Amino acid sequence: MFDTSGWTLNDWRVAYQQGAQPDELLPQLLARCAADDPAWIALLDQDGLDQALTELAATLAQAGGDPARLPLYGVPCAVKDNIDARGFPTTAACPEFAYQPTEDATVVAKLKAAGAVVIGKTNLDQFATGLVGTRSPYGAVANTFDPEVISGGSSSGSASVVARGLVPFALGTDTAGSGRVPAGLNNLVGLKPTRGAFSMTGVVPACRSLDCVSVFALTVDDAAAVSARLTGLDDRDVFSRTGTAAGDGPAIRRPGPIRRLAIPAPHHWLGDDATVAAWQRSLADWPQLGIELVPMAFDPLLELAELLYQGPWVAERHAAIGDFLQQQGESVHPVVRGIIESASQFDASATFRAQYRREELLRRIDQALADVDGLLVPTAPIAPTIAAVQADPLTLNSQLGTFTNFVNLADFCALAIPAGFREDGLPFGVTLISGAWKDQALQTLASQWLNRHPLPLGATDRPRPLETGPDSSQTASPEPGDDTITVAVVG
Amino acid sequence: MFDTSGWTLNDWRVAYQQGAQPDELLPQLLARCAADDPAWIALLDQDGLDQALTELAATLAQAGGDPARLPLYGVPCAVKDNIDARGFPTTAACPEFAYQPTEDATVVAKLKAAGAVVIGKTNLDQFATGLVGTRSPYGAVANTFDPEVISGGSSSGSASVVARGLVPFALGTDTAGSGRVPAGLNNLVGLKPTRGAFSMTGVVPACRSLDCVSVFALTVDDAAAVSARLTGLDDRDVFSRTGTAAGDGPAIRRPGPIRRLAIPAPHHWLGDDATVAAWQRSLADWPQLGIELVPMAFDPLLELAELLYQGPWVAERHAAIGDFLQQQGESVHPVVRGIIESASQFDASATFRAQYRREELLRRIDQALADVDGLLVPTAPIAPTIAAVQADPLTLNSQLGTFTNFVNLADFCALAIPAGFREDGLPFGVTLISGAWKDQALQTLASQWLNRHPLPLGATDRPRPLETGPDSSQTASPEPGDDTITVAVVG
Repeated sequence: MFDTSGWTLNDWRVAYQQGAQPDELLPQLLARCAADDPAWIALLDQDGLDQALTELAATLAQAGGDPARLPLYGVPCAVKDNIDARGFPTTAACPEFAYQPTEDATVVAKLKAAGAVVIGKTNLDQFATGLVGTRSPYGAVANTFDPEVISGGSSSGSASVVARGLVPFALGTDTAGSGRVPAGLNNLVGLKPTRGAFSMTGVVPACRSLDCVSVFALTVDDAAAVSARLTGLDDRDVFSRTGTAAGDGPAIRRPGPIRRLAIPAPHHWLGDDATVAAWQRSLADWPQLGIELVPMAFDPLLELAELLYQGPWVAERHAAIGDFLQQQGESVHPVVRGIIESASQFDASATFRAQYRREELLRRIDQALADVDGLLVPTAPIAPTIAAVQADPLTLNSQLGTFTNFVNLADFCALAIPAGFREDGLPFGVTLISGAWKDQALQTLASQWLNRHPLPLGATDRPRPLETGPDSSQTASPEPGDDTITVAVVG
Repeated sequence: MFDTSGWTLNDWRVAYQQGAQPDELLPQLLARCAADDPAWIALLDQDGLDQALTELAATLAQAGGDPARLPLYGVPCAVKDNIDARGFPTTAACPEFAYQPTEDATVVAKLKAAGAVVIGKTNLDQFATGLVGTRSPYGAVANTFDPEVISGGSSSGSASVVARGLVPFALGTDTAGSGRVPAGLNNLVGLKPTRGAFSMTGVVPACRSLDCVSVFALTVDDAAAVSARLTGLDDRDVFSRTGTAAGDGPAIRRPGPIRRLAIPAPHHWLGDDATVAAWQRSLADWPQLGIELVPMAFDPLLELAELLYQGPWVAERHAAIGDFLQQQGESVHPVVRGIIESASQFDASATFRAQYRREELLRRIDQALADVDGLLVPTAPIAPTIAAVQADPLTLNSQLGTFTNFVNLADFCALAIPAGFREDGLPFGVTLISGAWKDQALQTLASQWLNRHPLPLGATDRPRPLETGPDSSQTASPEPGDDTITVAVVG
């Protein structure tokens, strides 16, 4: 009997190399997953597991029978329930909306082709509308460190099952922060790729022009390894794309290692002292990595965020599920319904005016970020209780997105990582942000920083392994010290 | 007394080199411009001329007194009356909308800095809404070859005054074809640059996300020379940009010379036999330049064009002048008013859905154009009379844009050039189209083609000078023949 709790991809790989079998480990794992756990909307039953193992065997056979050729061979994962995975209904956390997908989402198909096994579908703020994890008929998902505190959302269940070490990684989605806020609140890595890098085919749209699939993992290495499987052009998704960082423009959009990070000036705090204290402690360690932190007024970024929350982009949600809302509005969560129905206040002229305003703000942002390579922000500036969110569902939700909302509108990539704990024991996370296609530079820097911080893995008690980093050629010059040996030349 | 009629930039340059003076030539020119000519909305009066000559003297002094340092020294030009030029009210062909600009549009300022003199503002389809040249309270502008036929629009007046040789070049604007259709119908060159290459600061918006300033000239060389003065980033215009052709993607968007051109398959004809015959005659000469013509179904391009005409982009016009329309709707041309008010049928959801559709069509277009370097199309597929357009103002207008409407939505640049005459004596034009930032490749090819065609300049009786081309390094390999000398090596 193995305890796979908190295993990283490497742990799973080693176990299989040493002779463990998927038909041994995965049933044991599923036996530890509770059907009444609100993090799950659906779990593999015996038939589903048999089917999954049969498919895995077929995939292995196609790979010549060599598990080493399947980078995710036999690795269990969870998938947010707005992403299609054959055999499970896709609910988007709305049972009346549910449909039975006839094929996997492109991202799920890619994971399976690499040997991964989807063991269940996870809860979310309905239609991925929220950053709290409470807006679901399947129940509010609790924080993995405190049952009274929110998990964050909308990818609440995916974050919860990874943080508790049930699976080494899970897929989420991230339009306004849904892949980062729950990572920050549960001591996880949350990878929000460059928009278009992962296909959205087979994902229920939120705001189609902004949506991303995201990855939750316990380590940067694991998030990067999964990301490497998911990247690639999909002809069936018109927002899918490939690219490289621009050769000109502001530093934040140019290729190269990250040396200067803008951090938000103090006037952006929201009065949560425990979070502010944790943030300030987390700032101590960047200079040792050769990183200069530059405090900056984030006003144009926050104006861009407001545009997303108060502007016409909500109509993309309406474009996606407006027909369902009209037919079966009573089956939609009232907060979610109120938000999506607010789309009707915007006409086409207002939409174009908001798009012009976005362009104006992007110019101001690029000017402000001309000399920094990225941003460093607290992932979530508050950590409210479920009760507080239920009492004031809109204000706290909006505050949670302070440092996440602007990212997709600005065409940035982001990587949320653990960054210590607040005095009350809740985890604190920070997010590294940079221009499109600079994902690897973020991963390199995050790996270096985490290697200096012996934080536990998620909500488990497992120690953090050293990160190897995605690509050492993008590493910023390390300062002399820890990793160098002083050689005395005696002449 | 000089007759400057039909002078190219070179003719003006030579005249000044030989001792002519602006205060001699320009008053003579203005004396030949009739205030009741519907092509003009305003002309310099004596005070305005004195002021312009004083400013030109100051510009010359700043250039060290050397006219050779001002590439447009003393050259008269006309400016479409939706573009600000100090000293003239900007009317957009709506007297009640008129305002007195306090500064020049960026493009006008750049022309003046190069020594050009704006001698007047030209008529247009009101608010640049139309491709006909009839929708103006200042009168319908007639075709320069037949007073019963439309000039085309919306840049009707600019095309008319260049075709008649009053000025060597004029500025227009081009959102859906307004800089090309009137060039085609008046035997002119119409340069529609890559979107964002010329600043829109100081131009009354039509569809801000698509609008371009355009150039009318008698020759490609002159259009290219003016274009070279206008290109450049403007921090005050958020749609202003710089760039180069993409290194990957379909051939039409990649850099390099043009060798294969898609031409519309015959099912796209609109039943105008005279135009079809002229088009077929014009196709004969491309192979001699090493160009392969590839007939192709243009359906996805025409679907994109329909999206512009029948979709929510009309709301950009509403965003620009909706407030004026609400307050003084009765002062707006009824056809223009009807078009702009149709914006109210589109809400934000419909706008986003249309934008998704645009992305889908762009993918299909890029697939269809993966192996061609550009498009060759008739500039205007019909040449209707003013009376016919007035009897059916929408259908014929829409037909006129068949091969122009899609260009800005697809992020293409375009160059309309003269291409012969129809049997009834009306001019026929073709347009070369390619991906963003490939303007020079179009100019090179157009120069080569025109050098084989001894067409008159506009509606003047002046012969066409040889084009020198913008950049010989981008020239497609000429076939052996005309320009090579066979050398017999006797051994």
